[in-house]
Amino acid sequence: MDYDVTAAARVSTIGADSLTSKLPTTGLINYLMRDRHGSPFEHSSMTFYVEAPIFVAREWFRHRAGWSYNEESGRYKALEPTFYVPAGDRNLIQEGKPGAYEFRQGSDAHFARMAANMLYSYNEAYEAYEDMLKAGIAREVARMVLPVGIYTSFYATCNARSLMHFLALRTKDEASAFPSFPQREIEMAAEQMEKHFAAAMPLTHAAFQKHGRVAP
Amino acid sequence: MDYDVTAAARVSTIGADSLTSKLPTTGLINYLMRDRHGSPFEHSSMTFYVEAPIFVAREWFRHRAGWSYNEESGRYKALEPTFYVPAGDRNLIQEGKPGAYEFRQGSDAHFARMAANMLYSYNEAYEAYEDMLKAGIAREVARMVLPVGIYTSFYATCNARSLMHFLALRTKDEASAFPSFPQREIEMAAEQMEKHFAAAMPLTHAAFQKHGRVAP
Amino acid sequence: MDYDVTAAARVSTIGADSLTSKLPTTGLINYLMRDRHGSPFEHSSMTFYVEAPIFVAREWFRHRAGWSYNEESGRYKALEPTFYVPAGDRNLIQEGKPGAYEFRQGSDAHFARMAANMLYSYNEAYEAYEDMLKAGIAREVARMVLPVGIYTSFYATCNARSLMHFLALRTKDEASAFPSFPQREIEMAAEQMEKHFAAAMPLTHAAFQKHGRVAP
Amino acid sequence: MDYDVTAAARVSTIGADSLTSKLPTTGLINYLMRDRHGSPFEHSSMTFYVEAPIFVAREWFRHRAGWSYNEESGRYKALEPTFYVPAGDRNLIQEGKPGAYEFRQGSDAHFARMAANMLYSYNEAYEAYEDMLKAGIAREVARMVLPVGIYTSFYATCNARSLMHFLALRTKDEASAFPSFPQREIEMAAEQMEKHFAAAMPLTHAAFQKHGRVAP
Repeated sequence: MDYDVTAAARVSTIGADSLTSKLPTTGLINYLMRDRHGSPFEHSSMTFYVEAPIFVAREWFRHRAGWSYNEESGRYKALEPTFYVPAGDRNLIQEGKPGAYEFRQGSDAHFARMAANMLYSYNEAYEAYEDMLKAGIAREVARMVLPVGIYTSFYATCNARSLMHFLALRTKDEASAFPSFPQREIEMAAEQMEKHFAAAMPLTHAAFQKHGRVAP
Repeated sequence: MDYDVTAAARVSTIGADSLTSKLPTTGLINYLMRDRHGSPFEHSSMTFYVEAPIFVAREWFRHRAGWSYNEESGRYKALEPTFYVPAGDRNLIQEGKPGAYEFRQGSDAHFARMAANMLYSYNEAYEAYEDMLKAGIAREVARMVLPVGIYTSFYATCNARSLMHFLALRTKDEASAFPSFPQREIEMAAEQMEKHFAAAMPLTHAAFQKHGRVAP
Repeated sequence: MDYDVTAAARVSTIGADSLTSKLPTTGLINYLMRDRHGSPFEHSSMTFYVEAPIFVAREWFRHRAGWSYNEESGRYKALEPTFYVPAGDRNLIQEGKPGAYEFRQGSDAHFARMAANMLYSYNEAYEAYEDMLKAGIAREVARMVLPVGIYTSFYATCNARSLMHFLALRTKDEASAFPSFPQREIEMAAEQMEKHFAAAMPLTHAAFQKHGRVAP
Repeated sequence: MDYDVTAAARVSTIGADSLTSKLPTTGLINYLMRDRHGSPFEHSSMTFYVEAPIFVAREWFRHRAGWSYNEESGRYKALEPTFYVPAGDRNLIQEGKPGAYEFRQGSDAHFARMAANMLYSYNEAYEAYEDMLKAGIAREVARMVLPVGIYTSFYATCNARSLMHFLALRTKDEASAFPSFPQREIEMAAEQMEKHFAAAMPLTHAAFQKHGRVAP
């Protein structure tokens, strides 16, 4: 995969000789990343199967360039009763202004109140959904009551460049040259993808990290 | 707007002379549409402000090529309690297989059961949402209980070509050369957009209709 | 590769079960192609290394959606003196109007006159190029005299959907539902790509052929 | 046009109230630019008619996202004998390595040698072209001898975001946060476009300049 980057990059300067298998070099990949020559990173394709709540999928699908999607359909199948509830270490309190929010841990009472509201509300919504399905009402109509906290599943295909754009926006990392304020839940998904990316394309990932996590 | 199509198309054959204002002709636009020369239709840009339920926005945002979006954020603002409930003439019963569903009108009992479930469920969800907000829980967390039937708002910019792709997929029309099975709610939005499109670009719209509603 | 299509398509109706390896079926692929469900065909990525004259590359690079390119640079390297001259069986005579040209074989005299002009002109251009390079003039300036018949090389990455769009426009085939009038030289490249495509994704290719060579 | 940016941006935080005509503010536009919220800049569409040599058009058309093109066709019309020759102040001497070239002024002898080679070569090429056309050889064949220094014409439509991407890569400016090494000829075109852009969207342009000429 790192090899695809350098082969494509080398065609600029050596044409057909780029086809002969010279190993990818850290130097060339760092140069491309630093000077933001992005196109050589587009020849490496990756497909992920993702299970995530709808509110995460909604943010994800805003990424258009270099992304392809196929998602579970609430028109074609009944959705399973799997819902997202934040874990105990999730920051629940939001302070500050748009673009500069600060988040901090809530109290136990905050967590309890959130959990109670979610469990109750998810349950009521799914019962209403099932009742409508049982009565023969179309899935595409019945689903309107389902919350954005319900899980959906999808295939997402991207290339190394579009993945780095995603990671730059959807993670918050000390190494970042530009600030971003992703919702924690999509960041959790991004962190898992980044592990796969780092394993598949170690030189590219290292260069991304080194040069401020700015997509080239 | 129709003029932008023919000016751009004429550059192929007459270069700079395409700049002088010759009126757009039905003949040229029909030729482009019929033989599927799509690029001249990309120079006309339109921006729509849309209010629609989240489940409609979700289908809409799958259109990537030639579309730009900015949407109300459930992280930055509290969402208003405006929800979608199908009107009495909406077909509620779905039969058949994926890709070939038939829909038919439900009974009064179907409608009553749907309406009762929706009103109850929407109400419970919004109360849970408000309770969490009142307790100081972050909007981005509290919103997880909100249903996909709640309204969102967004700006969508497209060009005539990408709009015709949208209309071909999101309307069901006798004049269509290819079948499509849009959910009625996005079709209702598409029908409104089509009226604006037909008013702004009458020759282009007529050619689209004439040639099987296939985007060029 | 055909498997990637059906796995992605099945997520709509069966969610996570799409991951378990059920063989791709002709039936499902034909259904997707016929009803123009294009997105499942976007998860299969292919990279081609291409050597072609600049006038072919120019038409090729007009394909934007789902295509990535890296090309040999006339700024970074001196171009090799490799030029395209049509073979003896190339139709040289063009008749009719834009969009409906007819081509027919020229006489021996036509071929001789074309060949003489090309060989002479290519040679003069390359001599001028070399003379400027020898004098120390920048490659990016000297190259201005090089003809569009000179060869360039590039990596092109696409997916099955974007490749089918390319093939629909850049080949002229009896099975086509829509007419296209590709220049013979890009069609020759498209024919070679189609062989690789048919070998890698036989079910997808057969469905493309069966359903009028219209990209889904 | 600046107004379209802020209206679209405001929908995030105030929904439908974004429609009421509040003036665009420098503060909001600077915030969007600095924190790289790019999508609000996609709702402003601009169409340019361009006359440029083929080697410039070749670099231009590599910009895919947010760009639409229609170009004069060498298959449909005979190309005019208009060619590009660098002016006397063009740096002709290139030194250094790819990605870090330095250019400097050539001597009068350099200029004279370049001009002589170009004029001669352009002339020979166009005579060969005309001779083939006169003999009845198809335009699409005869054009193969034409140099990349010949002029073509095209319509290019972009939005403010894609235009800023173009300007960031195709100009070399002291205010730039990232280095780029555009060929002088495409930079000359970019400079002209930037003037139109600055006139049409003064707040957006000022913010672009202020924040390192990095496209948001």
